[in-house]
Order: sequence, then C-alpha cells, then structure tokens
Amino acid sequence: MVKIAAIGLGSMGYGMAASALRAGHQVWGQDINAAQMARLVAEGGTQLAPGDVDAVMVVVLNAPQTEAVLFGADGIAPHLRAGTVVISCATVAPEFARDMEQRCAALGLLYLDAPISGGAAKAASGQLTIMASGTPAAFDAARPVLAAIAQTVFELGDHAGPGSAMKATNQLLAGVHIAAMAEAITFGMTQGIEPAKFLEVISQSAGTSWMLENRAPHIIDGDYTPRSSVNIWPKDLGIVLDIAKSARFSAPITAAAMQQYLAAAGMGLGGEDDAAVAKVYARNAGLTLPEGSA
Amino acid sequence: MVKIAAIGLGSMGYGMAASALRAGHQVWGQDINAAQMARLVAEGGTQLAPGDVDAVMVVVLNAPQTEAVLFGADGIAPHLRAGTVVISCATVAPEFARDMEQRCAALGLLYLDAPISGGAAKAASGQLTIMASGTPAAFDAARPVLAAIAQTVFELGDHAGPGSAMKATNQLLAGVHIAAMAEAITFGMTQGIEPAKFLEVISQSAGTSWMLENRAPHIIDGDYTPRSSVNIWPKDLGIVLDIAKSARFSAPITAAAMQQYLAAAGMGLGGEDDAAVAKVYARNAGLTLPEGSA
Repeated sequence: MVKIAAIGLGSMGYGMAASALRAGHQVWGQDINAAQMARLVAEGGTQLAPGDVDAVMVVVLNAPQTEAVLFGADGIAPHLRAGTVVISCATVAPEFARDMEQRCAALGLLYLDAPISGGAAKAASGQLTIMASGTPAAFDAARPVLAAIAQTVFELGDHAGPGSAMKATNQLLAGVHIAAMAEAITFGMTQGIEPAKFLEVISQSAGTSWMLENRAPHIIDGDYTPRSSVNIWPKDLGIVLDIAKSARFSAPITAAAMQQYLAAAGMGLGGEDDAAVAKVYARNAGLTLPEGSA
Repeated sequence: MVKIAAIGLGSMGYGMAASALRAGHQVWGQDINAAQMARLVAEGGTQLAPGDVDAVMVVVLNAPQTEAVLFGADGIAPHLRAGTVVISCATVAPEFARDMEQRCAALGLLYLDAPISGGAAKAASGQLTIMASGTPAAFDAARPVLAAIAQTVFELGDHAGPGSAMKATNQLLAGVHIAAMAEAITFGMTQGIEPAKFLEVISQSAGTSWMLENRAPHIIDGDYTPRSSVNIWPKDLGIVLDIAKSARFSAPITAAAMQQYLAAAGMGLGGEDDAAVAKVYARNAGLTLPEGSA
C-alpha cells in the first residue's frame, strides 16, 4: 500500500483517486473545486504532507496545468522527497513530457509519461488504458498505483515521450472518427437514411469504428450530455497538429476534422458531448437531428 | 433452383457466380475476359439463353458499365422475359439506381438495388453483406440468389435507392478510415512509433476501426498485393462527393481523404492495395515504410 497525492479531481481524476482508495491506498485529493476534495475525504481520503507521498497522480487538462501543479508558484515538485514518482496523465506533446521528466530528475523525482484512455466510466471502475513510458525505476515506483487504476498498461519505452506520442496518435484517429461519423450520419440523412438504421447497418459493416459505435447512439438519442466534450478536440487535435507541424508532417484529414470541431465550438457547443459536431453538418445542410426525450 | 446470368466475372463477380453454382443453381457467366468464362464453365457453368434466365447478377465496376450491360448496344435487358430480376451490385448513385429500376420496369423486369460489401474472400465463400432495396416482388425473385451469395442482407426500402445510399455512406467511412489510418501510422512514425506497435496498441484503444485492423497489417508487412485497390477510392469517394454536391452537403473530411487517394493514383499506385495511400504520407514526410519479405 502506498501514499498518493491525486492532483485534479475532475471526471477522470476523481474516478482514479476513488479507485486507488478502494484498492487500499492512502489518497490525498487536491482540486480547485473544494466540493470534490470534500467528496473524496467522505470516501476515505486523507490529508498527507507532500514529503510523505510515494506517488503523485497529475490528472489535469493540459500541459500548462501540468507544469503549474508541478513547478508553478505553489507547485508540489520541490516539496516531494527524492524517489517519489510523478504519474502525468494529461494529453501533452512528447517534447513537453521529455522536458518534465528532466526537470523532475533534477529534483531526484521519477516521472512516468502516462496518458490515459477510456473515459470517465472506466476511470471510476479502475479499468483505464494507460499508454506509458518512463525509466524502469519510474515504472517500478508507479506499479501499485497503475494496478489500482488501469486494466491495460502499454509499456512503450524507457523514457518519457513515447507514451504521449502514442496517445496523440490515438487521439488523431479518435477525433477524426467521431467527426467522420458525424459527416456520414448526416450525409445519409440527406439520402433518406434514418440515423438508427445507419447505426444498425454500418456497425456491422466495413465502415464501422470504435468511436462510431460509442458516439452515434448519442445522436440517435438526441442526448448531448457531455461524456467527453467538444472542447477536448480543439485541444487534442491542436496537440496533434502542433506535433505534426514541428515534424513537417502534412495531416490533411486531421486538419479537416479540426475545422469541424472549431465550428462546433464557435456555435457555442463546446460544453456539449463531442457527438454534437454533427450539429455543424446538420446546420450547414438544413437537416433536423433527432431530439432527446428528456 | 433458378437460372442465373452472371455478368462480370472479376474478383467479386466470379466468387459470387461460383457460390451460386455450389448452391445448385444453373449459372451462365459472361465477361470480357474469355478465360474467366472458361474457368466458370470448368466449374459447372452452363450456356443459357437470356429468355430462359430467372435472375441477372450485374457485378461490374460502375454505373456506366451497369447501364451498358443492361441497355447498351448488346445489352441483355431487352432479351429477358418479363418478371426476371436484375440484381445490380456495383456502387452507384441512388439516382442512377432509381433510373435503372424505372427502365427495367418499363420492360416488365424487376430490379434489386443490391450493392455488395465484404471483399473477394467473402464473395468466394458466399458470405457477402448486401445493402439492398427494391420492391417486394424484386426481393422475392432475388431471394434464392441472395441466399447463395450473402451472409447478411439488409432490406432497406421498397424501391431502388436506399441500398445505394447506404453503400455510399459506408464507403464514405471506409475510405476515410483507411486514409486516416495511413495518416496516423505515419504520424506515429515521425514520433518514433513502430508500425507494428501502433497496430498492437491502437487496435485495443478508442482510435480503432474495422479498416485499421484490416489494412494496417498490409503496411506492416510491406505487402501491397491488391485485395482492394487504390483506384476503388477515387471512384467510390467520387460517387459520395457527387451525391453530396447534388444535395449541397459539405463533406470536408471525405474531400480531404479523396485528395490523398488521388495523390496515390498520381504516384502510379492505382493498382496497388489501397493501404498504399500510406506511401503518399511517407513520401511527403521522408519516411521509409516497412518493406515486404517477398
């Protein structure tokens, strides 16, 4: 059993912290939202001093937040004891992950480049997929935590970088597939294909994808409660396109998908479920998507 | 048991004709390639008069070929007896399918809008997926043939059109997913991710698709033997974009994918497996894809 600081108690981080608690670890939760911190204490969370923790899970939105919670004015990194492992879960550029690893090493800290995949439900049940890379010492120190929060841990390299690179590659496809599903379901509507019939047939055909089967039901149900929001994609595809630009890599399909998410955000849909990118297509073509029963 | 004229004995049509033979039907195969006709006769194919057949399977490349074999100078339609069903399997625009149905009806012929999906191996084993629409009489007349060639028949409407519309929708996604896989696998290579590792991780993650799992192995093996060729996509995405243009439907992701297939064809790769669209990305980024062992 280890002592864990869980920084970031949003939909992903809270579930991960609660999973670690259930596994018997001591967990100190921190968030800008005091209600989430109180909720974790009610589930068994403990106050811990930074110098006492064995592992820090950083589950925040992006690279600037990751840097701030580690190395900002109130950053935790300088207060950790040597040998503590920082498990960094945000989707970031591989270059940023390599930089964080070096800055942690300068303080005697271990760093695991550990972006997560699977959504809030898998976070809550301790069944995430983690695309991880780091030194053998970082993996060893992180293993009790990983066992509590993940179903699958891909070990992708012995330094930070490959974990974030694989996550970016996955996000490229996931973001493109959601937008392509939205393009196809509305294209079908222009030809008289009902969205429910689209899902029935295409999910059994060569045109299917994991994201199509997961997100098309939201459109059919007219339910845009955010399981994962539109705003994730300008961020994550932005990371992909930044990496691509640095590598002088032409990614025209990703770039086209990015524009559709930006249009959705521009329509004021940033906080809706990412399946709401279909509303961009529907507005452009004068189509009426299914309405929710709620 | 029925009498079938099988027009078009390419990789799909031959397998379908052979499947119909195995099911006990009499099959008269026709193709511009005499060797394919002789091969079918060796497997049990029979010479039949047009006026004697119960069903015509048209398994050609596109709409112009479909129109030519039915209504061209040597077209078969005028020689068929009333009540014969034409099973039209090429990917075509819904509008074209509706036109063919009407022209067949004018001759007393039934017409099934029946585009096929599943590839040459499924055609050979009689396990295709068919996205079909047509009158109840057309379905009734076609059913013995469908039972011999298909594992799954989606019945999508009581006139021609919806079958082709669903096929176009499926092709939109299939074409986008192959090109997106190519974009992602080469993007990953710029970040040091080996193609085999890409497939291992992404096929178990939210970024996966049916096409990714089917086509990425071709890239990893460096094997571009055409199971389905690059040239299919300028044709099929061209149909999608033509339909979209007629409907004033903006399809930017499909349009971006189309450009990558056109670039592949422009590189002289039209006859290679469609996974060769990855070579466009590799050339642009100066990457070396895996080479085949052959």
